[in-house]
Amino acid sequence: MDQNLLCPLCVQAGGQELWQDDQLRVIVADEPDYPGFLRVVWHRHVAEWSDLSDAERRHLDHCLLQVERAIRDCMQPDKINLASLGNVVPHLHWHVIPRFADDPHFPQPVWGQRQRDVALPEHAVRQGRALVLQQHLQQVLAGQ
Amino acid sequence: MDQNLLCPLCVQAGGQELWQDDQLRVIVADEPDYPGFLRVVWHRHVAEWSDLSDAERRHLDHCLLQVERAIRDCMQPDKINLASLGNVVPHLHWHVIPRFADDPHFPQPVWGQRQRDVALPEHAVRQGRALVLQQHLQQVLAGQ
Repeated sequence: MDQNLLCPLCVQAGGQELWQDDQLRVIVADEPDYPGFLRVVWHRHVAEWSDLSDAERRHLDHCLLQVERAIRDCMQPDKINLASLGNVVPHLHWHVIPRFADDPHFPQPVWGQRQRDVALPEHAVRQGRALVLQQHLQQVLAGQ
Repeated sequence: MDQNLLCPLCVQAGGQELWQDDQLRVIVADEPDYPGFLRVVWHRHVAEWSDLSDAERRHLDHCLLQVERAIRDCMQPDKINLASLGNVVPHLHWHVIPRFADDPHFPQPVWGQRQRDVALPEHAVRQGRALVLQQHLQQVLAGQ
């Protein structure tokens, strides 16, 4: 497996690992303002989505689809944000983010300017839903 | 075709149209700081990637792959940023952005805090490459 010992996603999971197979892992993003924010990380050190083979990309896209669907089902967000950026850590990883009209950055991307504080009690409800999401997604991915 | 007359991407192309078929279009983003920044817009009004059928998603993903490859070939960026956000305009569209270590926001996303002015003369070179990209991509997509 291509590894880069200077790359944080080669030497660590990058967050609480929900599920993995031999090619990728799904992790819980350490983003307290965004319950339900998950990341899909390709194990092997490649920078871009287009660096994958067709079969690898199909596998990644299928996993991303399951993650997006599970987030929609469990979190009931106003919008999904999907992104592969990697400017800081150029190791292929996708952000899958449930967005709500009252979340701290909406309608800006989560990397944009903060608009407001976390909405309570909605945030607490979403924290609970994120735990349900984790269980649900593990079952979905294990059952494929 | 599902249309929403209040949606800007239902009533306008959203930018200079490079190519289209009956399901999607590729447009040049009106982002002067980011030559080579393209968007892929699904014609029909759906909000999420997971709203597409399997066949539709395969078609979109194939187009995104051609766009990403053409941008890499013609622009030689340091990184590609791929994103489907749609918080402001919830009509499925993907941003495909060539990023350079000296661009105005790097390593922040282009929606983050500005870090510096446009780098000259590199920017002028990239404007030229973006024109080459447009021609190249039209040929690639027309030849599929």
